[in-house]
Amino acid sequence: MPIKTIAHEARFSPEKMAKVNLFQSERFFCDLYGLEPGQSQKPHAHDGSDKVYVVVEGAARVRIGTEDAVVGEGAVAHVPAGAVHSIENTGAGRATLLVFMAPKP
Amino acid sequence: MPIKTIAHEARFSPEKMAKVNLFQSERFFCDLYGLEPGQSQKPHAHDGSDKVYVVVEGAARVRIGTEDAVVGEGAVAHVPAGAVHSIENTGAGRATLLVFMAPKP
Repeated sequence: MPIKTIAHEARFSPEKMAKVNLFQSERFFCDLYGLEPGQSQKPHAHDGSDKVYVVVEGAARVRIGTEDAVVGEGAVAHVPAGAVHSIENTGAGRATLLVFMAPKP
Repeated sequence: MPIKTIAHEARFSPEKMAKVNLFQSERFFCDLYGLEPGQSQKPHAHDGSDKVYVVVEGAARVRIGTEDAVVGEGAVAHVPAGAVHSIENTGAGRATLLVFMAPKP
C-alpha cells in the first residue's frame, strides 16, 4: 500500500538539510525535510505552485514574504505561489518538516 | 502570517467526522479531519485529484482501492487520482488527520 511512516523515512545529514520524497505525481509532491540545528533552506519562490510546511518535530523559523515566526510541532504554514520563503532550524534539536507542493514545479 | 496550529484548529462532533479547512487555493486544499471512535469517511474517489492523508493523532483504518491497513501517528498515505478510498477511526480514542488534495476538486 502507498503508506509510509515519517519516523522511518526521515533523514539527516551533517552537511545540509536532507530531503526525502514520500509521494509525487504531476499534481503534487510530498517531501520530508530533516534539519540539524542551524541548518536552513534559503529564501526562494515558486511561481504557480503553493507550498505547505508542517512541523512534525522540533522548531523552525518560517519566513513568508516579509514576515517570520518561530513555530513548533503541529504548526502548518501556507506559502502562496510566488511568495519568497525560507525555513531555519533555530532549536537545539533536530527539526522534521513535512512539505507539500501543488502542482509539482 | 498564514500559520495555524493543528491542536488549536481540530474539531470533533458526536454526529459525524468534523472537517476544518486550514488553507486552500485553486491548486490545493489542506483540511483537518477529526474523528470520534467509530466515525468514518465513506468510500469515494476523485478523478483528476491526488489526496494525501497524514495521521496526526490516534489510529485509522485507511482503504485505498482493494487494500486496507490500520495505521497510527506519523503515517502518510497517498491516494492516487481515481482510486476509491475511505478512512475509519478504529481506535478507542479520537483520531486527527491532516488531508491534502491537489488540485482542489
